[in-house]
Amino acid sequence: MTSSSRDDSLPAEPVAGNGLLHRRLFLTQGAALVGAGGLSLLTAQPASSQVLEVPPWMRAPGAHMSAYGQPSRHEAGVQRVVGGTPNVVGSGVSFTPHHRLHGTITPNSLHFERHHSGVPDIDPAQHRLLIHGAVRRPLTFTMDSLMRYPTVTKVQFLECSGNSGQNLGPNPPQAPCGVIHGLMSCSEWTGVPLAILMEEAGVERNASWVLAEGADAAAMSRSIPLEKIMDDAIVAIWQNGERLRPENGYPLRLFLPGWEGNMSVKWLRRLQVTDGPTMTRDETSHYTDVLLDGKALMFTFPMEVKSIITSPSTGLNLREPGIYEITGLAWSGRGKVTRVEVSADGGRTWAEAALQEPVLSMSFTRFRMAWRWNGGPAVLKSRAVDETGAVQPERAVLIARHGERMNYHNNAIQAWAVAAGGEVSNVFA
Amino acid sequence: MTSSSRDDSLPAEPVAGNGLLHRRLFLTQGAALVGAGGLSLLTAQPASSQVLEVPPWMRAPGAHMSAYGQPSRHEAGVQRVVGGTPNVVGSGVSFTPHHRLHGTITPNSLHFERHHSGVPDIDPAQHRLLIHGAVRRPLTFTMDSLMRYPTVTKVQFLECSGNSGQNLGPNPPQAPCGVIHGLMSCSEWTGVPLAILMEEAGVERNASWVLAEGADAAAMSRSIPLEKIMDDAIVAIWQNGERLRPENGYPLRLFLPGWEGNMSVKWLRRLQVTDGPTMTRDETSHYTDVLLDGKALMFTFPMEVKSIITSPSTGLNLREPGIYEITGLAWSGRGKVTRVEVSADGGRTWAEAALQEPVLSMSFTRFRMAWRWNGGPAVLKSRAVDETGAVQPERAVLIARHGERMNYHNNAIQAWAVAAGGEVSNVFA
Repeated sequence: MTSSSRDDSLPAEPVAGNGLLHRRLFLTQGAALVGAGGLSLLTAQPASSQVLEVPPWMRAPGAHMSAYGQPSRHEAGVQRVVGGTPNVVGSGVSFTPHHRLHGTITPNSLHFERHHSGVPDIDPAQHRLLIHGAVRRPLTFTMDSLMRYPTVTKVQFLECSGNSGQNLGPNPPQAPCGVIHGLMSCSEWTGVPLAILMEEAGVERNASWVLAEGADAAAMSRSIPLEKIMDDAIVAIWQNGERLRPENGYPLRLFLPGWEGNMSVKWLRRLQVTDGPTMTRDETSHYTDVLLDGKALMFTFPMEVKSIITSPSTGLNLREPGIYEITGLAWSGRGKVTRVEVSADGGRTWAEAALQEPVLSMSFTRFRMAWRWNGGPAVLKSRAVDETGAVQPERAVLIARHGERMNYHNNAIQAWAVAAGGEVSNVFA
Repeated sequence: MTSSSRDDSLPAEPVAGNGLLHRRLFLTQGAALVGAGGLSLLTAQPASSQVLEVPPWMRAPGAHMSAYGQPSRHEAGVQRVVGGTPNVVGSGVSFTPHHRLHGTITPNSLHFERHHSGVPDIDPAQHRLLIHGAVRRPLTFTMDSLMRYPTVTKVQFLECSGNSGQNLGPNPPQAPCGVIHGLMSCSEWTGVPLAILMEEAGVERNASWVLAEGADAAAMSRSIPLEKIMDDAIVAIWQNGERLRPENGYPLRLFLPGWEGNMSVKWLRRLQVTDGPTMTRDETSHYTDVLLDGKALMFTFPMEVKSIITSPSTGLNLREPGIYEITGLAWSGRGKVTRVEVSADGGRTWAEAALQEPVLSMSFTRFRMAWRWNGGPAVLKSRAVDETGAVQPERAVLIARHGERMNYHNNAIQAWAVAAGGEVSNVFA
């Protein structure tokens, strides 16, 4: 498991086992890729003619401008995969199809969902936010009044603590990357710093926690340390430029950067300042981790450092030997990702991946690695490190530490096996 | 026109005429806003009861998860405003409603449009990109082969050179901010660096320009200096995480960071390497600026430094005296924005606005300014400076320099007048 990146190597020379090439190969804008080392990456065909046929869509004017655009009909298959809870109306999840996306922003239409009693249809003119409890001056906010306050804008991920939970079972599920790891998304959030609203209400000196309650039929509620509320919490009103979507809390959600998704309470209607956690149903029946000794670990808030290779991954099979871009996402609820390493030999050797700038705190970071696949078997892994020095653990290490009854907070290294024919599958390796 | 930001002033003290407050006021997360200077910013109501009524949407489970989400029905009015060209099928524009948005990312559904013959319905399996002309090895690319190449991801603006053109007429149009300045948007673009494809084709030594042609019925085409193509041009495949929308060039568009939008040819099907500009219809009949001496200025590629206050703006009227956030967007086709100043007295005095980090090159930068409106008349302006030192000009200065027949490339300072009653209008001031 030693890292063998050699910064003095030629871009086209392998830097780790089974064909990993130096990340600089993809940073040199062409010349090295085409020229150096006799690489034959490239998959274009010599043009048989310099005259292109005129396709049917050039023979008549196309569609008009539109008020609110939609994807091409040829991309209709790029959807969230919906999973419900049997016999519970409106309870379930939908997964972001990361294996069909690229970059770091998740489009609002494809942001993951986790609802406990469906998506309420809220009239923003009637919606109210109440701040009360241990405050000197209980306050009620309309959406109009909230939109008068100063705002901040941040690109940050949101990850359900149940994300990747299927990989904690005894056998590796054979599903697309987005269906195993799709309970995470990344958006540009804009809203009002909660510290301002709390200062206005005047928090009492003995207060230490805040209960946040949503306006869905489950009245989903969580307890949050006051320190986080005053540090970097916002009430989010806009997501990727436009108003929040209904499934993301329209007209108002709590947003707690880096913390488990469930705590960023959607459809926020009430913040009650308290002197301890409220021990709501949603934080005692769910979102706790059963440990080796049978005790349940509660209140594990920050999502730990993690990375996932999105391509290649299950279903994205390789067609022929040659140069491939291995790419994926890395993030940490504790700050910035500082390093991502990739292995093509199941973790025996590793090489450093290129990180797309700008690397932002508590946001998705896109990583890329150049790989020459020789047509033989390979096991691909990625391993992220964050600015606290935390390193993403191997699956076996995580399970040994927490026990087999762990359901949440799986940040283990993902392994994709590439078979000799190019088929990709999910493996525990 | 001198700047009077004083970094040693108290946050609640005015730093420029007519009530502009120090940008730090909005950076201090609450305490200063509520406490200092006896400010009474805040628009919340004292809660009459600590028990919130249970609204109808909490009384029954809500809607199910969905495959591809859509906005709330209460936001149906947030749309692009469509403007057609009379008697020309498929020719026209649609405007991004910036006065209804916040942050810096433009959602794909609201990205501005400019089409010359409508939106073609392209089958990606049949689409081809041909690179030919002065190259050693003419190449044809399918979408499958392009998606094997290494990628880059960048958040960058796109602005039509006709944006803000209505403000060059004799009278200020009274329209929402997005209808005057909505031919600009900002997205996270992911695609393949063109340098790689060009190196593979092998550009001949005497080549200096590239003709780019789209697969729409207009076969829209522009000439681009080879230097730009090899520097930072990409063929974009993904926009804000998902595949390009049809109206943004699906399945493939050229993207030239910072340059006038029309050159980032949509539905890209052909790149012909040449030894000079082709002088296409689209670059001789349009996108040229008639100068004072009657000559037409061609090939003014980078979009110059510019900023627009998005709120307050026409239609977003003020309701009562008090503290307001003045906010808007700044950008430059020549690099990063380094400074934005705001004036509330029509440009007599200025104060420095807060810039939302991270400030990215050739991307929208969100700026914010704290303002105490006293209920009287005011004229709001913003003025951006970029890393080359270029300063956004006053409208009168721009027109004096270029003449009154200028139609494109209007980067002049925008002025919004606030009347005593709070009504906002577009003025030339």
